[in-house]
Amino acid sequence: MQIQSKLIDKAVKELARLPGLGRKSALRNILYLLRQNPTQTIELSSALVDLVENIKRCKVCHVHTEDEICGICANPQRDQKLICVVEDIRDVLAIENTGQFRGVYHVLGGLISPMEGIGPGQLTLAALEQRINSGEIDEILLALSATAEGDTTNFYIYRKLKDLPIKVTTIARGISVGDDLEYADEITLARSILHRVEYKGS
Amino acid sequence: MQIQSKLIDKAVKELARLPGLGRKSALRNILYLLRQNPTQTIELSSALVDLVENIKRCKVCHVHTEDEICGICANPQRDQKLICVVEDIRDVLAIENTGQFRGVYHVLGGLISPMEGIGPGQLTLAALEQRINSGEIDEILLALSATAEGDTTNFYIYRKLKDLPIKVTTIARGISVGDDLEYADEITLARSILHRVEYKGS
Repeated sequence: MQIQSKLIDKAVKELARLPGLGRKSALRNILYLLRQNPTQTIELSSALVDLVENIKRCKVCHVHTEDEICGICANPQRDQKLICVVEDIRDVLAIENTGQFRGVYHVLGGLISPMEGIGPGQLTLAALEQRINSGEIDEILLALSATAEGDTTNFYIYRKLKDLPIKVTTIARGISVGDDLEYADEITLARSILHRVEYKGS
Repeated sequence: MQIQSKLIDKAVKELARLPGLGRKSALRNILYLLRQNPTQTIELSSALVDLVENIKRCKVCHVHTEDEICGICANPQRDQKLICVVEDIRDVLAIENTGQFRGVYHVLGGLISPMEGIGPGQLTLAALEQRINSGEIDEILLALSATAEGDTTNFYIYRKLKDLPIKVTTIARGISVGDDLEYADEITLARSILHRVEYKGS
């Protein structure tokens, strides 16, 4: 697909670098923008520039924010003694949406992955340790993906903390609400039996 | 999904206005950009601004271009007496990719669609008429979509031109190359029989 216009070609090329957008859908989006009022494109561009120029990491939990300290860390209503360790901001959003967590977060910025060459040094693990050593932390809740990388990272953090007087918990693994038992994989089913909880009739 | 950061929220909102991108994939793309070198986002933004600020329509064929007259119209090798009428720049790209067309184009910018409230006045039909009246045109090739809107627009142009000494053609409708006859719809099959061509053994 050879585009005659250098400007369209350049915009398509740049937009197609986003994950999940190929050249065809990038061109479709560019033509869509050309049909709209130019202010829409200007707004999009300035929002993107504003983003990369002004977004920082929260000094406490390392979540993306434009403030020195994010809204959750700065909120006195949140339990600062309970830290939930997550991979990135999407997990923070997902957990916040449940409305069930009143503690604070620590964003690792990834998971330990020898396959992808990501070691503990590239994550915010040192900052987490420092946070634990300097503050009065009661509990660390590990809320990482149920993958090999998530398990490796869980184990790494657990090993670092096991001698400290801190409770280390992980989110429960088990059968998803609404799932048929017969379609659950064996490992999940096995874990849900191992970690069975007392039935309280509610 | 409530995003704590106003900057991320704004960027997601703007990006999610593109067709085919929901809020979830927009957020995924924004987080991807935040993980990359900021120059990538700056490049994307400036390509978009450059686009809407500098892209024009070719004065002859109305295709998107940054020049007064597009590369195809300005090319002396192209047959200026054969005009292919298309809906938008994507059709120009598709036809150019075949390498089978040596004439020039006329981009309508849409199709007549009473359902969507698009009348002949919103398209570049007046410019097409002017172009035909002022130049020495031998043939108009209608290459519009095989839809009700395409047919309506074909008929509208045909009626305008039928008293002029100009050949009006349309691209052939028939069975796609590689298609099984039994799976072709009846209208396409009927048309392919009506418009049968002499078999020359090649």
